[in-house]
Amino acid sequence: MKIIGGPSSLELASKISKLTACPLVAVNTKRFPDGEFYFRFEEKISGEDTLIVQSLYPPQDTRLIELFMILHTVRDLKAKTIIVFIPYLAYSRQDERYLEGECLSASLMAELLQHLGADSIYTIDVHNQKVLDMYKIPAHTLTASGELAKYFVSQDLKNPFVVAPDAEEMALKRAETAAKTIGAEYDYFEKKRNRHTGEIVTYSKKVNVKGRDVVIIDDIISTGKTSANVAKMLKKQGARRVFIGVSHALLLGNALKILNASGVDEIVGTDSVVNSYAKVSVAPILANALKAGKL
Amino acid sequence: MKIIGGPSSLELASKISKLTACPLVAVNTKRFPDGEFYFRFEEKISGEDTLIVQSLYPPQDTRLIELFMILHTVRDLKAKTIIVFIPYLAYSRQDERYLEGECLSASLMAELLQHLGADSIYTIDVHNQKVLDMYKIPAHTLTASGELAKYFVSQDLKNPFVVAPDAEEMALKRAETAAKTIGAEYDYFEKKRNRHTGEIVTYSKKVNVKGRDVVIIDDIISTGKTSANVAKMLKKQGARRVFIGVSHALLLGNALKILNASGVDEIVGTDSVVNSYAKVSVAPILANALKAGKL
Repeated sequence: MKIIGGPSSLELASKISKLTACPLVAVNTKRFPDGEFYFRFEEKISGEDTLIVQSLYPPQDTRLIELFMILHTVRDLKAKTIIVFIPYLAYSRQDERYLEGECLSASLMAELLQHLGADSIYTIDVHNQKVLDMYKIPAHTLTASGELAKYFVSQDLKNPFVVAPDAEEMALKRAETAAKTIGAEYDYFEKKRNRHTGEIVTYSKKVNVKGRDVVIIDDIISTGKTSANVAKMLKKQGARRVFIGVSHALLLGNALKILNASGVDEIVGTDSVVNSYAKVSVAPILANALKAGKL
Repeated sequence: MKIIGGPSSLELASKISKLTACPLVAVNTKRFPDGEFYFRFEEKISGEDTLIVQSLYPPQDTRLIELFMILHTVRDLKAKTIIVFIPYLAYSRQDERYLEGECLSASLMAELLQHLGADSIYTIDVHNQKVLDMYKIPAHTLTASGELAKYFVSQDLKNPFVVAPDAEEMALKRAETAAKTIGAEYDYFEKKRNRHTGEIVTYSKKVNVKGRDVVIIDDIISTGKTSANVAKMLKKQGARRVFIGVSHALLLGNALKILNASGVDEIVGTDSVVNSYAKVSVAPILANALKAGKL
């Protein structure tokens, strides 16, 4: 197999290449003065099994067009198979019409990736499983919670405790996975939306976190409000330290400010989103999945 | 027919609506905090003939995703027919593989617009006719030079003269069209690329422009270098005033600075690119084309 690193995930692609011992393909990319993207393969890929790695963290539209252009070229140049790894799958919010007339952007994504020749898709901790049900090709979500947990294992935690920020099935599963690796108990918070203010209110279960190091395992930090609320509550209840392990640390707008003010001690993200919080790589997760499948 | 204005061309869509007496469709658009686009129709479009208006001037990728989302929704909601008007057709540069392994972005555009259900495409002064040959659906280019010329007719020009900045067939045709409307002669400059510096050198024909008002009719101003060279030369040869009438005034980077320094007296663009130089609308051009067809 040959690995193609998109502009948003060059380092990640390189890590996957090392772990799988599959070579990286030499490519040439640039932006023209008007902002248009240019993409070129500098070696042959016809007849090859290929893996495209391109995460779709903001600016999503730019990274999407890059992905479409890479896919189009790979198929045009007659690669044998195309696996697409999109650690952060943008436009996963709109998986149904909440209001009549809405664009089903998640369905558009599925349609275009399929149409452009992807044979299968892998992503990390997808926002909603329903999004992947829209694909006619095999579409898999993998979880980063195990790798995030490994990071915390090496942090010398004191009497650790794992928390899911909400009670959704996938959130609980992620917390469970992390708790097993850390060797800790886990529990969850409940999220409720105030109908009038739209604010998210969190209620704690009756767990004594006093003096303990707590790890919040979350799939995404966007504005940071939910995580900050949970962290604040944990600190109030006497938690010694509060860590956040998050698959997609988007950290939009004032997120960092809000999280710092909430008393969070450390944010640990993955290279699904390339920023200074990407302390854990999702490369081994994909490498293992590929090994388990048919590399 | 119902007209759908995309975020990049709301005013233009409204003008087309007035000229054709076809109603604008009420839509709701926004950007989520993470930058993702949201699109919703606020009225039914099933069974309707539709016209989507969305120009693709920079930032192209953003406007492209908007267009894809609108198209996907229009088709999903079962409109009867879909005409897409894209005054500035981005990614028209790469219509062939100049180097092995390159992405044929123009072909990707054609493929996706077709796949998403467009029945036909209209654009203004396409960069290269070959780009439109890539479409399996009818794809038309219309020229803005007539409308640009009308603007200059009202400017009280003195002994006007029209110039094409290069000798390409379409450039000459545009100059001819404008010259007819203005009631002037026209000629062209020749463009040569210096092999070593990559710079564009222009050579003038032996036309006496002394004391005359010269109108350069061009399809696009990107970095502004070509137009500035032509303007400089015209001023040097004694032109009284130098105007530029341009279909797509992208005016990237230092373009304005370069053009001002070259002695250009006025830049007149169209609403293909929404900026303060959009003094001419392409709405009547499309309206006439639709009337000539089967509205």
